[in-house]
Amino acid sequence: MLKRINVSKKLAKDEYKKTIDALGVRLGEAQRACRDEKVPVIVLFEGWSAAGKGSRIGSLIRSLDPRGFEVFTIQTPSEEERLHPYMWRFWRRTPADGRVHVFDRSWYRILMRGREEEETPLSDPVRDVLSFERMLTDTGVVIVKFFLHVSRKEQKKRLEALEANPDTAWRVTKADWKQNRDYDEYLTHFERILEETDHDQAKWTVVEADDGRFADVKVCLTVVEALEEAAEKARAKRGQDAGAVGEAPERPLAEAPERPPAVAPEPLPAEVRTSVLASVVSWQAMDRTEYRDRLKDAQKSLDILHSAMYLQRAPAAAVFEGWDAAGKGGAIKRLVAPLDPRGYKVAPSSAPNDIERAHHYLWRYWNEAPKAGHLTVFDRSWYGRVMVERIEGFCTRAEWKRAFREINDFEEQLVDSGVVLLKFWLHIDPDEQLRRFEGRVNNPVKQWKITDEDWRNREKWEQYLEAVDEMLFRTSTTYAPWTIVEADNKLFARVKVVETVRRQLENRLK
Amino acid sequence: MLKRINVSKKLAKDEYKKTIDALGVRLGEAQRACRDEKVPVIVLFEGWSAAGKGSRIGSLIRSLDPRGFEVFTIQTPSEEERLHPYMWRFWRRTPADGRVHVFDRSWYRILMRGREEEETPLSDPVRDVLSFERMLTDTGVVIVKFFLHVSRKEQKKRLEALEANPDTAWRVTKADWKQNRDYDEYLTHFERILEETDHDQAKWTVVEADDGRFADVKVCLTVVEALEEAAEKARAKRGQDAGAVGEAPERPLAEAPERPPAVAPEPLPAEVRTSVLASVVSWQAMDRTEYRDRLKDAQKSLDILHSAMYLQRAPAAAVFEGWDAAGKGGAIKRLVAPLDPRGYKVAPSSAPNDIERAHHYLWRYWNEAPKAGHLTVFDRSWYGRVMVERIEGFCTRAEWKRAFREINDFEEQLVDSGVVLLKFWLHIDPDEQLRRFEGRVNNPVKQWKITDEDWRNREKWEQYLEAVDEMLFRTSTTYAPWTIVEADNKLFARVKVVETVRRQLENRLK
Repeated sequence: MLKRINVSKKLAKDEYKKTIDALGVRLGEAQRACRDEKVPVIVLFEGWSAAGKGSRIGSLIRSLDPRGFEVFTIQTPSEEERLHPYMWRFWRRTPADGRVHVFDRSWYRILMRGREEEETPLSDPVRDVLSFERMLTDTGVVIVKFFLHVSRKEQKKRLEALEANPDTAWRVTKADWKQNRDYDEYLTHFERILEETDHDQAKWTVVEADDGRFADVKVCLTVVEALEEAAEKARAKRGQDAGAVGEAPERPLAEAPERPPAVAPEPLPAEVRTSVLASVVSWQAMDRTEYRDRLKDAQKSLDILHSAMYLQRAPAAAVFEGWDAAGKGGAIKRLVAPLDPRGYKVAPSSAPNDIERAHHYLWRYWNEAPKAGHLTVFDRSWYGRVMVERIEGFCTRAEWKRAFREINDFEEQLVDSGVVLLKFWLHIDPDEQLRRFEGRVNNPVKQWKITDEDWRNREKWEQYLEAVDEMLFRTSTTYAPWTIVEADNKLFARVKVVETVRRQLENRLK
Repeated sequence: MLKRINVSKKLAKDEYKKTIDALGVRLGEAQRACRDEKVPVIVLFEGWSAAGKGSRIGSLIRSLDPRGFEVFTIQTPSEEERLHPYMWRFWRRTPADGRVHVFDRSWYRILMRGREEEETPLSDPVRDVLSFERMLTDTGVVIVKFFLHVSRKEQKKRLEALEANPDTAWRVTKADWKQNRDYDEYLTHFERILEETDHDQAKWTVVEADDGRFADVKVCLTVVEALEEAAEKARAKRGQDAGAVGEAPERPLAEAPERPPAVAPEPLPAEVRTSVLASVVSWQAMDRTEYRDRLKDAQKSLDILHSAMYLQRAPAAAVFEGWDAAGKGGAIKRLVAPLDPRGYKVAPSSAPNDIERAHHYLWRYWNEAPKAGHLTVFDRSWYGRVMVERIEGFCTRAEWKRAFREINDFEEQLVDSGVVLLKFWLHIDPDEQLRRFEGRVNNPVKQWKITDEDWRNREKWEQYLEAVDEMLFRTSTTYAPWTIVEADNKLFARVKVVETVRRQLENRLK
């Protein structure tokens, strides 16, 4: 979830001012709505040392009603805290109905710091943290979790600046420098924690924090949207309860305060909404000669590796997702061309049939799980749940939201059982897509490839972009990362796919 | 969950016949209702070797429509299964909407057998099993899980009988005899698995299986009730969806088939509904002299142990629950009498105040979590959630159902952090309670102790009995077992409490 993030996003001063002011108004309103609906809220900040947690919290609370929130800084446990069970100090600080509690570091301390100095460690901290959050969200507490992400370079600059100033030098510890020195190790460590604790009811937002203004806007927007959604849900639930037969509403609906008209949301810079794709350049050069040579070379190795897979009984799965006309078919063709057909199969994901519809959406993919020594190529896959099903409303909001976790669990089980799992997102520019669509329309041989549905999907490009970005972010895990394939140039894309498969199989088969 | 169960419950032949026939009719109906409502159902059987899984399944399916169910026997994985990820064979066998799949052993195999022979083990089988069940129940699959429990003696008898018969001798393996030889070890092993995997959406039912007839009735009743509840819920949900604004119902309500009148449930033998309390004899003899001597002796040790606790910084908590007038107050008085008041506190659980009501129900108890070196005595406790709140409707059905898991998680965290946790259920007979109530009414000094509420609770004895029994069953864990105190004789009860605390502290403090 961290490795693909471009942390250096920026926001100009005037754009910042305009945006943050508008968000501030919405935030104040959303806070009042949550207070009226008695929704308790937790906002917590974790992240790298010197990532700017304090400043972000400062900006966030500027727009909050001071009577309704409190900020807690979690440091080394006090004497009193050490004498109690680990979660005691966090349980005590859970918010009452309608209040906002902001945590500068939190119960993740025990995970992030690797237990260093805690006197009352937990035997299974991940389980205990999840259980804690689950108990709270089950009763309606909103939990917004931020991880502030800065580059190694930026962190170093900040630590040096802090040290250079006699007033702040004391804030820099050995541990901070260690983090900077072993940045990559810590990155993997944090990545693992985030993926283990990212849940639909308490999901992580990674904030690109090299630029404070950008980070402020992203933090503020995320909190605003979470609060607005929670208040709306509480309001709807109250309405429903009031309407339910035989149950008296706690507060008659007629008395519910009129909702003030929402401030028209200021259009936001697109970059705030995407974390992964914003920085992908979809065109990469490659000429025919280079293409032919590299493809041939990679395919030759693949043939040999495929035999080795069979002999070593290693299963593999390659998942292809991408925009319509991004070239999935062509890439798959080049991938399987050198392989013995008895050792692989291509599983296309068309609309589910009646039997599939009568089962869990993962059922058909479990059926297709690769067998030891074999490769299954998925032409589209279980990711339909969080793309087409999400956008077309084929599943409920709750269903696609929990699907990220389900998919990660599914993939972790595959990988645990020895499957080499490769996931490709073929990325093209909307203009390139248009050129390809028009090319298909005008080419009698390819006309069958273009349908009305393709044109309809194209109109929803922005919606898909947001969905795809969240998918790439939430399902890029340490055990099954995505490979983003720059696919405006088909030659480059095919070579990247085939070479990636080769490299991963080589790693696995030694 | 297993250790308190009296496995030798019996049912006479004529009572069995009458009951099972009535249940059979209800089962057939419930199955049809689930088919109509498209509810998929999984019923799985685990348990000791020779516990009678096959026979129970045989009885169960007699009343099911053969077109709607299938039985799967899970044995050593086949060659094909071994070539796939572990959960593959179970995912493939998940039921389609409206169908019933019965498993003779299941995905618990990997846990129950300790991975012996599996070729594709999971890195964290408990997590993977829970994730699997959760994904299914999230989409509406009903999962009924049975553990068939027999005594060591009965198991031995059955294994010998199987071996004596040439036709069945092959069925007895070395592993079966090993189980019988190391019965206690396996008991703890199974107990741990059950407590780790008991969830509100997929809870375990332990079946006392020494007597086949009794077991048949309990299995059948449990399945019937689960199916009836699921069909009812699906029906209600469909009604709600149909009523929701802006959404077209999948099938118009008017067309929904009239529900056939339910067969009037045959009154069931009370023993089928209770697992733990049924065999408790609430009167235990003890005369004054013995009382005085033993109490004095135990109290003297307690005083010393309390100092040791303080020096070793060991925290402790003693929870007192029991029927009204069972003598909680008197027992607590004797327990704390010898202790230094600076080292303990008694936390009574009256009705929650406004601040407590605005938090999670466990919040106030987390606040009271004992400090290192100190003892907290809870006079009533978080168990109110699954007793008074459940029965008086102060919380929803979903809330008290998930509370068992929440309470177990809470207690496991306390114990993990070093708390010595002791839980007492003070058990009296309804007649004894009546005597005590009347005694209070007629004694001017004690009149304050009896309220109208006590009389109202008394009228709900049967409801409380079922709730208490489920509580004792689901929250008796390896880390925090209940002590049931036979309390018709106050002298005996007090001595048992004080001596139990002494013994547990001695064990802990060495």
